Amino acid sequence: MSDIRKVVLAYSGGLDTSVILKWLQDTYGCEVITFTADIGQGEELEPARAKAKMFGVEKIYIEDLREEFVRDFVFPMFRANTVYEGEYLLGTSIARPLIAKRLVEIAQREKADAISHGATGKGNDQVRFELGAYALMPNVKVIAPWREWDLLSREKLLAYADKHGIPVDFKKRKGGAPFSMDANLLHISYEGGILEDPAAEPPAKGMWRLTVPVEKAPNKPEDVELEFVRGDLVAINGQKMKAHELLAELNRLGGKHGVGRLDLVENRYVGMKSRGCYETPGGTVLLRAHRAIESLTLDREVAHLKDDLMPRYASMIYNGYWWSPERRALQVLIDHTQEPVSGTVVVRLYKGNVIVVSRKSANSLFDMRISTFEDDAGAYDQADAGGFIKLNALRMRIAAGKRGAGASAKAPRAAAKPAARKRG
Amino acid sequence: MSDIRKVVLAYSGGLDTSVILKWLQDTYGCEVITFTADIGQGEELEPARAKAKMFGVEKIYIEDLREEFVRDFVFPMFRANTVYEGEYLLGTSIARPLIAKRLVEIAQREKADAISHGATGKGNDQVRFELGAYALMPNVKVIAPWREWDLLSREKLLAYADKHGIPVDFKKRKGGAPFSMDANLLHISYEGGILEDPAAEPPAKGMWRLTVPVEKAPNKPEDVELEFVRGDLVAINGQKMKAHELLAELNRLGGKHGVGRLDLVENRYVGMKSRGCYETPGGTVLLRAHRAIESLTLDREVAHLKDDLMPRYASMIYNGYWWSPERRALQVLIDHTQEPVSGTVVVRLYKGNVIVVSRKSANSLFDMRISTFEDDAGAYDQADAGGFIKLNALRMRIAAGKRGAGASAKAPRAAAKPAARKRG
Amino acid sequence: MSDIRKVVLAYSGGLDTSVILKWLQDTYGCEVITFTADIGQGEELEPARAKAKMFGVEKIYIEDLREEFVRDFVFPMFRANTVYEGEYLLGTSIARPLIAKRLVEIAQREKADAISHGATGKGNDQVRFELGAYALMPNVKVIAPWREWDLLSREKLLAYADKHGIPVDFKKRKGGAPFSMDANLLHISYEGGILEDPAAEPPAKGMWRLTVPVEKAPNKPEDVELEFVRGDLVAINGQKMKAHELLAELNRLGGKHGVGRLDLVENRYVGMKSRGCYETPGGTVLLRAHRAIESLTLDREVAHLKDDLMPRYASMIYNGYWWSPERRALQVLIDHTQEPVSGTVVVRLYKGNVIVVSRKSANSLFDMRISTFEDDAGAYDQADAGGFIKLNALRMRIAAGKRGAGASAKAPRAAAKPAARKRG
Amino acid sequence: MSDIRKVVLAYSGGLDTSVILKWLQDTYGCEVITFTADIGQGEELEPARAKAKMFGVEKIYIEDLREEFVRDFVFPMFRANTVYEGEYLLGTSIARPLIAKRLVEIAQREKADAISHGATGKGNDQVRFELGAYALMPNVKVIAPWREWDLLSREKLLAYADKHGIPVDFKKRKGGAPFSMDANLLHISYEGGILEDPAAEPPAKGMWRLTVPVEKAPNKPEDVELEFVRGDLVAINGQKMKAHELLAELNRLGGKHGVGRLDLVENRYVGMKSRGCYETPGGTVLLRAHRAIESLTLDREVAHLKDDLMPRYASMIYNGYWWSPERRALQVLIDHTQEPVSGTVVVRLYKGNVIVVSRKSANSLFDMRISTFEDDAGAYDQADAGGFIKLNALRMRIAAGKRGAGASAKAPRAAAKPAARKRG
Repeated sequence: MSDIRKVVLAYSGGLDTSVILKWLQDTYGCEVITFTADIGQGEELEPARAKAKMFGVEKIYIEDLREEFVRDFVFPMFRANTVYEGEYLLGTSIARPLIAKRLVEIAQREKADAISHGATGKGNDQVRFELGAYALMPNVKVIAPWREWDLLSREKLLAYADKHGIPVDFKKRKGGAPFSMDANLLHISYEGGILEDPAAEPPAKGMWRLTVPVEKAPNKPEDVELEFVRGDLVAINGQKMKAHELLAELNRLGGKHGVGRLDLVENRYVGMKSRGCYETPGGTVLLRAHRAIESLTLDREVAHLKDDLMPRYASMIYNGYWWSPERRALQVLIDHTQEPVSGTVVVRLYKGNVIVVSRKSANSLFDMRISTFEDDAGAYDQADAGGFIKLNALRMRIAAGKRGAGASAKAPRAAAKPAARKRG
Repeated sequence: MSDIRKVVLAYSGGLDTSVILKWLQDTYGCEVITFTADIGQGEELEPARAKAKMFGVEKIYIEDLREEFVRDFVFPMFRANTVYEGEYLLGTSIARPLIAKRLVEIAQREKADAISHGATGKGNDQVRFELGAYALMPNVKVIAPWREWDLLSREKLLAYADKHGIPVDFKKRKGGAPFSMDANLLHISYEGGILEDPAAEPPAKGMWRLTVPVEKAPNKPEDVELEFVRGDLVAINGQKMKAHELLAELNRLGGKHGVGRLDLVENRYVGMKSRGCYETPGGTVLLRAHRAIESLTLDREVAHLKDDLMPRYASMIYNGYWWSPERRALQVLIDHTQEPVSGTVVVRLYKGNVIVVSRKSANSLFDMRISTFEDDAGAYDQADAGGFIKLNALRMRIAAGKRGAGASAKAPRAAAKPAARKRG
Repeated sequence: MSDIRKVVLAYSGGLDTSVILKWLQDTYGCEVITFTADIGQGEELEPARAKAKMFGVEKIYIEDLREEFVRDFVFPMFRANTVYEGEYLLGTSIARPLIAKRLVEIAQREKADAISHGATGKGNDQVRFELGAYALMPNVKVIAPWREWDLLSREKLLAYADKHGIPVDFKKRKGGAPFSMDANLLHISYEGGILEDPAAEPPAKGMWRLTVPVEKAPNKPEDVELEFVRGDLVAINGQKMKAHELLAELNRLGGKHGVGRLDLVENRYVGMKSRGCYETPGGTVLLRAHRAIESLTLDREVAHLKDDLMPRYASMIYNGYWWSPERRALQVLIDHTQEPVSGTVVVRLYKGNVIVVSRKSANSLFDMRISTFEDDAGAYDQADAGGFIKLNALRMRIAAGKRGAGASAKAPRAAAKPAARKRG
Repeated sequence: MSDIRKVVLAYSGGLDTSVILKWLQDTYGCEVITFTADIGQGEELEPARAKAKMFGVEKIYIEDLREEFVRDFVFPMFRANTVYEGEYLLGTSIARPLIAKRLVEIAQREKADAISHGATGKGNDQVRFELGAYALMPNVKVIAPWREWDLLSREKLLAYADKHGIPVDFKKRKGGAPFSMDANLLHISYEGGILEDPAAEPPAKGMWRLTVPVEKAPNKPEDVELEFVRGDLVAINGQKMKAHELLAELNRLGGKHGVGRLDLVENRYVGMKSRGCYETPGGTVLLRAHRAIESLTLDREVAHLKDDLMPRYASMIYNGYWWSPERRALQVLIDHTQEPVSGTVVVRLYKGNVIVVSRKSANSLFDMRISTFEDDAGAYDQADAGGFIKLNALRMRIAAGKRGAGASAKAPRAAAKPAARKRG
């Protein structure tokens, strides 16, 4: 272990990463540089500085990455209407590549030879941190204490903290939160502990933090106008703001109306199923509105191409491949498609619902003149439809003709006895 | 036109198909057989019989297809979590293949040489009817009066009706509904007329029929338990029912709580964008619950395979290819995946929201022993994750190593100057 | 028909398009502008000019498009390793969008209101010409005489020609070629006539023109070095040339060694199967060599993404959607991936075979140090593989564990009785 | 290591697995059961029995799995026209799941607690063996000596062999083959050693074993008739045979004519590129012929669905997921599509070429009546094509119309400035 001289640690200032800080110093006898980022988790960062100093850390990086996070990670992801397994908006997944990038950038500047993080060996976050780091700095060493040490129970961890004078707050000592949390500008996630049983409802109190419960949401709906330029949100109710300010405002609005709670079972990249509860108020509004502006401005086949590729893109992000060449290649396509995706959408927020009320765009491909059921003055020749259908049907007519009399909806030849085949 | 002797007409008893009935008799001098089906549209069928008789129709088919509709069309479609363009639950699309099938079955039995329907030349329904018919009876002739006749304005239609003694109810004469509707057990759709402007909100009154507005929904949530066997709903709150009864009950429950309204712009197969409003209360509940039971019981990669193929499957149904060999081939895969999808899900209906509260299954692949953050007694070796990550990162590390010093998150080689290429 | 004043005709100078020229003048009473392009079909263009003059055509466009054809159409397509239905290299398909583009550009410059072409109503080419034209000039009128006139048999066509003094060469009068041909720099296709029976071998003599039969190919293999830059061929045997010169040289080399004959049954976009014979000597060599240079320089997942999307991209081109937004979107992705695809490949041409003999690239991701079976000095830690496998197996182990004793290779639960399900 | 009592070893009788046998006995102090299978590798199995006895092995399994291998693994794979990365026919990959299955079946019968194999820690085969084993017997222990022991160089291996009286044949002692080989009924692979440089040609002599070099192939072509039933080969030249006999005969025929050599660089699942040379004479013929019979009998969209899914299916097999639920799900779809794939294909084998000369099928969807360029007596109405094209063009025309005057082939709006976007 003697070849590690300098480690950059993703440091939150909390109990776990404080123990890790100390453990790294003791185990590797190396210098530890801490890196603490504000990505909108809603916590003070200065206490992290104080603690780091307490452990003798000399290089302390504390950074506000909120704008970069939303502008360069969240927004590009939303251009694809990205949802993992039909429901999860990837709030945790999308924050990791930014942390990984800053860790290695600091490591390169400080000539550190390793990075370290506090993610456990069972989760996706270790994968996301490390794949990102390896992709950007191929020879970096990664120290994942949860996979190395023997402090695997909370008791051992607390004992280690006490032994080394690491402050443990009262709640933690009493057992801590009954679940673990991860927060950033896009969401808060809750998992583990009392949430581990997918048949059990999450606690009504003490958990959800970004959203009011639907029963406490205002009795009056609120209409919000979102303006998009080339696929990205640029203004809310006419107010232009920076990316992270926009998302914060959407969080406030969505949260106030009880929008964006989710309770699901997902499939982790490391091979197990896991139950998670998520609050994504702003993201939920954004996704709906983005789809609405695309519905006016995107060509059908481009939209379908995006829909077909989206689950794959979502898996790349979920699995930690943000910095991979395949994610970049898909991003190039996705970004290209967003050129005409500009305009405004009005959504109504009400009791947990996000209702699209209006969409408008100078690039709209909606042609009322053609789609009208009324007289269209010859814009569309209905007779064309006959030929369209006939040729689209041709291959099926030939096949049905060849099948002859035996053919019917009840006994399609092709479906006959498929189970009879011996399978390898 | 003299070669048409006998036509089977999809007959609703309404003004349009009554005019068509008469027009077919006059224009083709042929016998018309009417076919009227109950697929849960919520209208009396006997008036259609009376009207048909009035026109001298001798063969009148009136059938209750509700069970077949839900069991053999709606449920198979929901096994795939099918959604078109991210939002539309395909309520109209899935009813057409059943009508097409019965039309040609009657045509075959009655030795008719043609079928006819009242769908216009601009919409998807003509395609769905006719592709289905051609696939099942390749030599059938299809008469689509809206593409042939000159009664293209409402005035002409009414004049024709008056001239031939076709009863026109008062509302129709006054201008009829300000939009067109299509209803069945899965949904009601609204489109056209005042809905043609995607920037204009649909009318708060006089339109939505299956669902109460959220503000009128009960203040008390209602928990509903859905039981699935092999991917299909089989019981609600412990009560086993037939397929169509289950869907009707889900509609009642969802509708009561304001669940399932949708307002969107979609891409029609015939090439234009179209605005539609949809009410799918039961379907919305069913989709959410089906995803939840799959989340416990489906293997990750099987679930992802389904997700990847779903948009394509949805397009097949939307475009009218239910009876195509490619839809059948996908169905075989989808049905196969549903073998383990059995168990119960509790959803909470409240103010337009469908909240999954619990899922349980004897086939659950959720392994609390492994996913727990607590001590897992060796069920999962965290050290394995290191190797997993290392090998998954290997190709990116090799690439980054070859790129050498110039490589960084900011300037990935692969992204350099893509726009410089001259494009064809 | 009186609203057509000026038509741009894709004019080859042959019998069919000469009849069309005359027919357009007579039927529409309009000015006809002829457009004749050299895309490497190997025919003199001046006779076309003479004939057009004979018909009183005043504006005659004759253009050498060979470089543009290969550089902006053929090469971009080969970046994707594009093959339709596993075999067809799309030689005809890729030439149509260029012709369509020039037709509408001339129509726009000349303020013509229509374009016309000589493709029949059964084939793909009409679709390719017209989709391209509509996409680039939405209000253009297209006159497709084969779908309009009554000259559907050869006799009628000849009679029309004779009546109007259109020269008919001796062979044509005797029955012409026993099949139809289409030629350009990428290939020659043969179809129709005696080739219409897929059970019958094409004639050994009188058909294939670009390639020698294998039995006449040299007894000595020939090694050829191809240099690629960013996915495109730039030099052969160290000789830099323009795009079309490179392809011509590859055709010479491949043809000399009997490379690139193909005999297949394909599925046309208009719904029928069709038998085609194709000669693509240079393209066959290029495809193999391009794959070889990609095999060294492309990341695995990027390569797989391309492979997954290729059939869809091929269908777009085959079906005539070159100028569609979805083809352009895919092209952006494809072009992006080609950034590192530079290097040289040596192929051996011999008796119809293209054998890759060597590949080299400065961007090679092949790392002998890691892949060696010999001692790798720690570049790769074999122990990592254990964790990699364990976590990749985890979901299957959990599932197998849950299935319990009944599970085995012989009776997988998931495969049980899939046929029992009633299908819609 | 004391908890291992009984191990089933995949035993070839060669030097490596003999050393493993001894090493397992010594290291684990456990009983070793050997399993040796004939999958057509062309080696005597009795020497393996003698050697196993020499080491005191009491339970010796020697099995002829050739028929099962071809019938239940090779043929199902060929139903999908499976090719990995555009070229590799998966000869090694497809043999592993059968070995894995027999290993765990024997382990279950013998109540063994572990299995062992001789695959190295760098290759794909370890993954294929172990994923298969874990999927079928979730609690099996896998011993992969190459990942555990310290005999990583050939010298150490030979020293160990000598020390323990393991016979080493003369060639091995001298350095053995200059590359490693893997053989079965589908192919022989060559990799490693002198093949590790992708710029170096493989040796002309001493390597290829199943095929003659093209220059030594007969000067006379040979036509071979292949009969398929439901996607599988059932007879050659009218002779019905068992699956493995058919493949052996195809190998003989292909090999005689120099068919099926391949030299490529592939991407391994463990993350590195690797150079492999492959001989697959029979498989190369079979693939071409299977595509040909499908070209007549498969619906277009079904064929395209298969083509779209094939690369994914190929990766599953390459990566070792044969026994996964996702591979089984795809197989169900693939098998379903093969119902109509029956008929005969004649291929001409000549100088390394496989030329399709004829295809016939009672299920042929090729309709000469419709595809003919001659008069079709009204089977196809060319006028339909106009409507077909118009509606397929509609979305592009609307878009082009909205873009207005600025639009052209040269400056598509959608492509404008994609590189300007800041990317994450």
